[in-house]
Amino acid sequence: MTERIRVALEPAYDVWVGSGRDVLDAALASVDAGRASAVAVITDDNVAAAGHAARVTGAWRALGVPVHVLEVASGEASKSVAAWADLVEGLATLGLDRDAWVCAVGGGVVGDLAGFAAASYLRGVRFVQVPTTLLAMVDASVGGKTGINAVAGKNLIGAFWQPQVVVADVAALATLPPAVLREGAVELYKHALLVDAPWRAAFHGASFGLSPSLDAATWTELIADGVRVKADVVAADPLERGVRAYLNLGHTLAHALEAATDHAMAHGTAVAYGLAYAALLGHARGLADWRADAFALAGWAADAPLPDVPFADLRAFMARDKKRRAGRVRWVLLERVGQPIVVDDVPDDVLDAAWHALHGQFAARIHEEDSA
Amino acid sequence: MTERIRVALEPAYDVWVGSGRDVLDAALASVDAGRASAVAVITDDNVAAAGHAARVTGAWRALGVPVHVLEVASGEASKSVAAWADLVEGLATLGLDRDAWVCAVGGGVVGDLAGFAAASYLRGVRFVQVPTTLLAMVDASVGGKTGINAVAGKNLIGAFWQPQVVVADVAALATLPPAVLREGAVELYKHALLVDAPWRAAFHGASFGLSPSLDAATWTELIADGVRVKADVVAADPLERGVRAYLNLGHTLAHALEAATDHAMAHGTAVAYGLAYAALLGHARGLADWRADAFALAGWAADAPLPDVPFADLRAFMARDKKRRAGRVRWVLLERVGQPIVVDDVPDDVLDAAWHALHGQFAARIHEEDSA
Repeated sequence: MTERIRVALEPAYDVWVGSGRDVLDAALASVDAGRASAVAVITDDNVAAAGHAARVTGAWRALGVPVHVLEVASGEASKSVAAWADLVEGLATLGLDRDAWVCAVGGGVVGDLAGFAAASYLRGVRFVQVPTTLLAMVDASVGGKTGINAVAGKNLIGAFWQPQVVVADVAALATLPPAVLREGAVELYKHALLVDAPWRAAFHGASFGLSPSLDAATWTELIADGVRVKADVVAADPLERGVRAYLNLGHTLAHALEAATDHAMAHGTAVAYGLAYAALLGHARGLADWRADAFALAGWAADAPLPDVPFADLRAFMARDKKRRAGRVRWVLLERVGQPIVVDDVPDDVLDAAWHALHGQFAARIHEEDSA
Repeated sequence: MTERIRVALEPAYDVWVGSGRDVLDAALASVDAGRASAVAVITDDNVAAAGHAARVTGAWRALGVPVHVLEVASGEASKSVAAWADLVEGLATLGLDRDAWVCAVGGGVVGDLAGFAAASYLRGVRFVQVPTTLLAMVDASVGGKTGINAVAGKNLIGAFWQPQVVVADVAALATLPPAVLREGAVELYKHALLVDAPWRAAFHGASFGLSPSLDAATWTELIADGVRVKADVVAADPLERGVRAYLNLGHTLAHALEAATDHAMAHGTAVAYGLAYAALLGHARGLADWRADAFALAGWAADAPLPDVPFADLRAFMARDKKRRAGRVRWVLLERVGQPIVVDDVPDDVLDAAWHALHGQFAARIHEEDSA
């Protein structure tokens, strides 16, 4: 079974979701990738070791396209000016022309980094994204955001650059560590919250129903549903000036948590806490009460304790978040599940009380485990 | 007198040409620049010393917008990854948000560098260009090309990023050294060749009619006419996939000359030789004979001798020019003045013979001067 989701951006492109080399071949053929003068396949050492990059280079070679492989170190540290500069200088040294394509094979880091290299080499060359993590499949590969980190903050440097096509081969999920899978599940669950998707129920069983051993058809359907949510939102707001902000549900606190832990905290963990925090803020405001679901998600997905910092410290990080406008911190809340709103008038005492409530909940849990 | 030329790109913008602070104020008002949360004025030490940056910061301050000035070293060396990284990290450290604007005040280097910083900070912030050289006014400020140099070649890294508005204040030309003025005149003349503009005749008098002491009205008209030519071409081909190639008249050889001299040769000098070379190639092909005009231009504008290298060496640099397609070197020639064509089938012996003819012409001239 193969799903094909249209992302109606300018230019529009398709996200293919399925299993196996056939999907890759069909997706590349659909954008006439054989016309590329060459392809630079950008991947990381982990992904290469798992054999995913080799599958992709095989598909390009089958099209008769000369293949160059550029490998970066796995991990967030590769989203740096230095790693990006190495890549674009590498493309230049290879003498790739404007008809060369860049193909990212990996998770969010590789996609963001390779995407910005594609956007900035020769003022932009064609780009294909082959996400290999659940998070990258349902999130990073839709919407054209590419970028690297600045010293002063994550993702502050980059471009909007749409791929020609995205190919999510669910076979890649079988090699993912459970923590990485949970990270993707958090974003998938967030998408479900935004539209009150029926498949949100799939997360409410044991382990939220997710394991690498799920069959390909189930994965394909779940991922395609998640991609559809994001595709609809970004198509309505390509440059993130309006409703695309909804995708930041849980992310205002998450970004501050990541900054406060010097990015030691995994994104999925931070967003899981962020969702729980958004549920607390919503409840304090008299909106829908979805705290139980959010707490259960965080309890399952978080793999690190909440940092023991005063809320004022987090508030300082929020003050420099790139999504703030006119100095006000914006929060995405749920009027009810399926109906997000953006507010920028939450009083500091409400923020502080919710932080204490969150801390009580999850610091306690971690401490119990510590003493077990 | 103020001229206002529409550049019909997506998004469209205006190039204002005129003299004095009033023009700057009116241009900024026309795009509602007062709504900026802050502005980063990016300039170089030369331009700052000439007082141009101060005029511009004054205009922004008058709008009530907080102003930050970021100064780079003047010269091509600033079109580097390192200088660009310093700028974007600087914008991040200042905590500028998405409603902040970037304003370039300077020549082509500052415009290209600041433009790429604007394109890549927070995935793109609004950009205003205030060109202070003739070359930047008639060329670099129209078309949205921004970029920096790679180790392997010039302008290999960058983005298409359109400004909100461009303001050419011809008062800035009074401070330009004659060599820099001639550099701009070469591109202006090239624009005239592409459309057989009546004002091409202005270049045929003594010193091609140009001097910093020309009155503001004459400058304004001449620059506006040149901008119109480029605006028409880029509007027809925003991403340089077709007719925009015409703007490369003279540039195929020019880029090779710059590379062969390790960029010691000024761009205007290289293009002047490149135009003469294009005239020679066109004549050899039985097209229009505009050699006399082209030789006169090169004789007036070139401020360095032709490098004494075999054509094969230049050919090697052309082989990696980013505008080649499928490995063939493309030449813009003039079927007649006003009617450019692109060819990619000039035999190597014709290229070689034309190079010898060019060398005979200009090496001789330089040697005469040496012995005078």
